[in-house]
Amino acid sequence: MKAAQDCYPSRVGKREEILERLDPVIYDYSEPISPNALNQHQLQQFEQDGFITLPDFMPEMVAPLLDEISRMKQSMAGREELVTEPDSHELRSMFALHQHSDLMDRFSRDQRILEIVHQLLGSEAYLMQSRLNIKPAFRGKSFSWHSDFETWHVEDGMPRMRAVTVWLMLDENTEFNGPLYVVPGSHKKYVSCQGTTELNNHQKSLKKQVAGVPEPESIQQILKDNGLVSIKGKPGTLVIHECNLLHGSPDNLSPWPRSVLMMVYNSVENRVTTPYSGLKPRPEYLSSADQAPLKPVNKD
Amino acid sequence: MKAAQDCYPSRVGKREEILERLDPVIYDYSEPISPNALNQHQLQQFEQDGFITLPDFMPEMVAPLLDEISRMKQSMAGREELVTEPDSHELRSMFALHQHSDLMDRFSRDQRILEIVHQLLGSEAYLMQSRLNIKPAFRGKSFSWHSDFETWHVEDGMPRMRAVTVWLMLDENTEFNGPLYVVPGSHKKYVSCQGTTELNNHQKSLKKQVAGVPEPESIQQILKDNGLVSIKGKPGTLVIHECNLLHGSPDNLSPWPRSVLMMVYNSVENRVTTPYSGLKPRPEYLSSADQAPLKPVNKD
Repeated sequence: MKAAQDCYPSRVGKREEILERLDPVIYDYSEPISPNALNQHQLQQFEQDGFITLPDFMPEMVAPLLDEISRMKQSMAGREELVTEPDSHELRSMFALHQHSDLMDRFSRDQRILEIVHQLLGSEAYLMQSRLNIKPAFRGKSFSWHSDFETWHVEDGMPRMRAVTVWLMLDENTEFNGPLYVVPGSHKKYVSCQGTTELNNHQKSLKKQVAGVPEPESIQQILKDNGLVSIKGKPGTLVIHECNLLHGSPDNLSPWPRSVLMMVYNSVENRVTTPYSGLKPRPEYLSSADQAPLKPVNKD
Repeated sequence: MKAAQDCYPSRVGKREEILERLDPVIYDYSEPISPNALNQHQLQQFEQDGFITLPDFMPEMVAPLLDEISRMKQSMAGREELVTEPDSHELRSMFALHQHSDLMDRFSRDQRILEIVHQLLGSEAYLMQSRLNIKPAFRGKSFSWHSDFETWHVEDGMPRMRAVTVWLMLDENTEFNGPLYVVPGSHKKYVSCQGTTELNNHQKSLKKQVAGVPEPESIQQILKDNGLVSIKGKPGTLVIHECNLLHGSPDNLSPWPRSVLMMVYNSVENRVTTPYSGLKPRPEYLSSADQAPLKPVNKD
């Protein structure tokens, strides 16, 4: 299948430039119909900032998920879904967790989360990616500034901005353990990056991203009105994060790991086609072949 | 001259261990005799934490010093006293500033600073090192956990813990631009590090220190009672920092540089001898050959 018209060209060998977002941020602004949906104030905040933090959202899930992760580190050892740090053999990320664990699968379909996702995307959604970022104590390395959408568009073929990442803090996220830095409002701009994409770029980029990282001047320009925010919180805090939000995170020099469990939801009306890079698609653990709408699971 | 008995062995090819400090933290606890000296409360804080932050100490010096630095970047270009970042050609540190600038020389002998230094060291002092750390926006890399004293002892031959670093913030130091992390109270322990020291180690260590970096287990143990503190403040804030305080700092991912001007004062009763590593001394810009007591300069 040939990729459709490219509304968001990036890494196409041109000079970097900042484009306007062409898509809505929120696809369904109607009144909440469930207690889990975001209220109008929260929706406005998400629209404006491109993210929202919900403290104490599911603290009861933290211990069981951490146990499950310990188990999965053993059971998934040696698989390509496990990515190590650039400078050491410590685990940096694990992917496709929902395919290897019933608990992770149920978490990804938790009704409390899916109702918000459906509300923001204005449609049903499928799980494009599940991921644990570990940021190990002392050795966890930084993530460069980037928009997830830019990568998903160029390398996976996501056509439009109609996806969100929902992530749960499994450790306390503090100023010391490499918290996520975001540029509020940056989701309304799109940096069409310079350069091109190498074959199998993901093998490097999951350790340290280079292609698709905006130049300092672009970041400066986007950042000048709104500054930076670091997302901190206790374990059990949920964060919802628009697909095009500019974000990065520093090294973790501290003795405290920073594990966050991330689920990427893409609208079923925005299913990926072929990568806009023209290269072959990335592995299935980065962009799921299963694009069926998710069925919510109740808490009990 | 042969180095005296080694009270603080490190990198001597043994297993890492944590030793007790053998020296006082403050050498003169008598009542302040000048308005610039620290009061008893501040002395106690320094004794306990190993550092003290003095906001708004010399804000009037920031602009002239920044101008001077701009000039010196040109006039010192190409000299070995200029150290670049490990991953780029951006400037990371500049040394021996007082030898290349009258303003820097006068700053290093500012009476307001020297009175505190004399008080803490209980003696006159000489300027062992002057240094600017730049931590450039976007590209400034982390500094590993270390005690300055450990390096000065092993690589420069500083016999005992009787030195302080005084540093002035030339930019605002925030949570985002790679602020200094310190472990309060860590100056009372000494990590005798494993390994040995390579010849010309400083050529690498000034970009990224490896030898003399305690193992995570040692840092955990020292840190478990007091946690971490990040030192933040406005330009013009002065920080005094005991020579054996465990510290490090993360990347600077932000668009704001973090320049700090550092002066290292060593007691004239603690002059360096030969390096305890047994290797040849480091260059003069890291440990000054001029060990004459500093003469204070008044502000005007």
